[in-house]
Amino acid sequence: MSEIEYRPGLDGVPAVQTRISFLDLEHEQIVIRGYDLIELAERLSYLEVGYLLLRGEVPQPAQLSALEATIRRQQASLPPELGQIYAAWGERLHPMDALRTGISALSADHGGFDADNGEGLEDTLIRLWALVPVMIAQAHRARTHHPFSEPRGDLPFAANFLWMMTGIEPSPLAARIFDRLLILYSEHEMPNSTFAARVIASSLADPYGALTGAVAALKGPLHGGANEAVMHMLQAVGSAQAMEAYLLDRLKAKARIMGFGHRVYMHRPDPRAVMTKALLAELVREKGGQQLQAMCEEGERVMRDQKGLYPNLDYYAAPVYHLLGIATDLFTPIFFAARTAGLAAHLREQYAHNRLFRPRVVYLGPRGLTLRTGDSG
Amino acid sequence: MSEIEYRPGLDGVPAVQTRISFLDLEHEQIVIRGYDLIELAERLSYLEVGYLLLRGEVPQPAQLSALEATIRRQQASLPPELGQIYAAWGERLHPMDALRTGISALSADHGGFDADNGEGLEDTLIRLWALVPVMIAQAHRARTHHPFSEPRGDLPFAANFLWMMTGIEPSPLAARIFDRLLILYSEHEMPNSTFAARVIASSLADPYGALTGAVAALKGPLHGGANEAVMHMLQAVGSAQAMEAYLLDRLKAKARIMGFGHRVYMHRPDPRAVMTKALLAELVREKGGQQLQAMCEEGERVMRDQKGLYPNLDYYAAPVYHLLGIATDLFTPIFFAARTAGLAAHLREQYAHNRLFRPRVVYLGPRGLTLRTGDSG
Repeated sequence: MSEIEYRPGLDGVPAVQTRISFLDLEHEQIVIRGYDLIELAERLSYLEVGYLLLRGEVPQPAQLSALEATIRRQQASLPPELGQIYAAWGERLHPMDALRTGISALSADHGGFDADNGEGLEDTLIRLWALVPVMIAQAHRARTHHPFSEPRGDLPFAANFLWMMTGIEPSPLAARIFDRLLILYSEHEMPNSTFAARVIASSLADPYGALTGAVAALKGPLHGGANEAVMHMLQAVGSAQAMEAYLLDRLKAKARIMGFGHRVYMHRPDPRAVMTKALLAELVREKGGQQLQAMCEEGERVMRDQKGLYPNLDYYAAPVYHLLGIATDLFTPIFFAARTAGLAAHLREQYAHNRLFRPRVVYLGPRGLTLRTGDSG
Repeated sequence: MSEIEYRPGLDGVPAVQTRISFLDLEHEQIVIRGYDLIELAERLSYLEVGYLLLRGEVPQPAQLSALEATIRRQQASLPPELGQIYAAWGERLHPMDALRTGISALSADHGGFDADNGEGLEDTLIRLWALVPVMIAQAHRARTHHPFSEPRGDLPFAANFLWMMTGIEPSPLAARIFDRLLILYSEHEMPNSTFAARVIASSLADPYGALTGAVAALKGPLHGGANEAVMHMLQAVGSAQAMEAYLLDRLKAKARIMGFGHRVYMHRPDPRAVMTKALLAELVREKGGQQLQAMCEEGERVMRDQKGLYPNLDYYAAPVYHLLGIATDLFTPIFFAARTAGLAAHLREQYAHNRLFRPRVVYLGPRGLTLRTGDSG
């Protein structure tokens, strides 16, 4: 048995060496390829940040145009069999299950993955990055009995994503705010889903499988499912006036309250939540929703006063998505779509510096048992 | 940054506390719920071992009959949409991709997973355990343009599995040997795929997602893919006489040779390989295949003499499967089917004693960068 200390959930245990990102708690900063994530979200577009994540540097205009063209071409080439899957299962497939199943099926015709082939790998990663929003939108439209809004090559990435999901062309402000949310969700060091993807990739399994596993992990209510749970809570509460009583009640029942605290940040503010709170205020000026905004701010106050807990990104992302006209059960799939950029970088890094993840256990069960003569098969 | 030592691949790091199984290197024993795996394989049937894994005790006859009846009922109820998926993609979907996609799609109508609901959880785990062999066989038969051999309730689990894959009812000896192989593959502490499943489940994601991730991991050539690679090697070599020259050549080129060594066993024999070697000899007496057997034994000798490496389970399982008439690209799916029993036990344990897996990183990248005024989106 191992003599290394057992830490439940690998809390605080370094699992990889990485050059991609780092939660710098000392400076309260999310470091992305050396930059502050908040500065990136203020100054760059989501595709620029994705390029930075994947290749380690901010793209020149020509490099960005080439990436945009590749993504546009890939988005127009979703295999028709996927549409058949979504049509066949219809509303019986949860949006995260549709995405998980869709990414897995995309490996058709791409079975011969070779982790050593750098160029083919990058093509595959960009293919997945491009197709995830299309799959999310197509499954959603099939599930809600709407015709699919085909990807529009004339719209930027974020605006096109909103268009495909809602069938409505977003305002410039709405598209810009959604783009920023995608950046804020794009990468976050070693959360459960990124870890799952790297564990899978470490057997030199293909990127389709690794991303399928990441979707599976992100679906869990302790992880990506949190932003949907926040929206359900806000809708259940209904008003800023009712918020305090609701939260005190939940706290008294020792119920889990989604949208607050974070394994790594603990009792520090999540810098992404601070920015998203400002984006919500900006969006409310265009779209209305003052009541929703007031409810969120009241919830933040109560949780800080009562528990010293700060809102995380999911808390303020939920009302923003809602005001952007996005169905609540798409919040977690959108989290994944944004994170595909970071995951692509992690997969490339894992394959390039691979070591199979194969930990040990602390065995607490019985030993030395033998079958009785009566036992037999 | 963490002050805990970084161990690549979490080598030797305890990741969970478990009562399921343990590789006891000191006693060269694979401990399963307190029993020696080899004794279980000699004395019990695969379903009995699966019951032991899931519930912690060897079943009484009535308990075993109830499990058999549940599995038979579940095997008769594969959703027809899966057949449509397999028919639509046909030979374009690798068998492991078909399995990964199929398990993911099975969550349709089962979206509302509740990790706290013990009874519903066990039903789901047994459903998956029962349906995995059916999906493997159905996808394979569709891919090779054969009609599907519907599950036969009159055959025991292992015999029925062989029947569905090959369309031929196996001899009693063939069925018994296949059943033993399923036991030997059923559980093995914390390999990469089991770890992937537990990482995913720790977000309280559903068992469909966790098993989907495990299939994804098992597909990798550093993990489950090894038994197929062994068969390809044996077919490439062709004779016992050619084996030594082939292996020396590969060793000289520092190429990876599949079927030898193991992260945990290192330079010890894998007790499962010892038993499988004996099963191969038994099968050869019924089916022929002396040449294949001689080739394997010669390879074992060369690798022991040259590198001090012992064969692992995959090395002798490959020729056994081959003589059982199983297509080579089903070897890894069968590994997964057998392991579903162990995975079911691990998922139940993870949900019951959960802690989200969320490790940290060693960050080696740049810090303190800022965008230049020219950079902009």
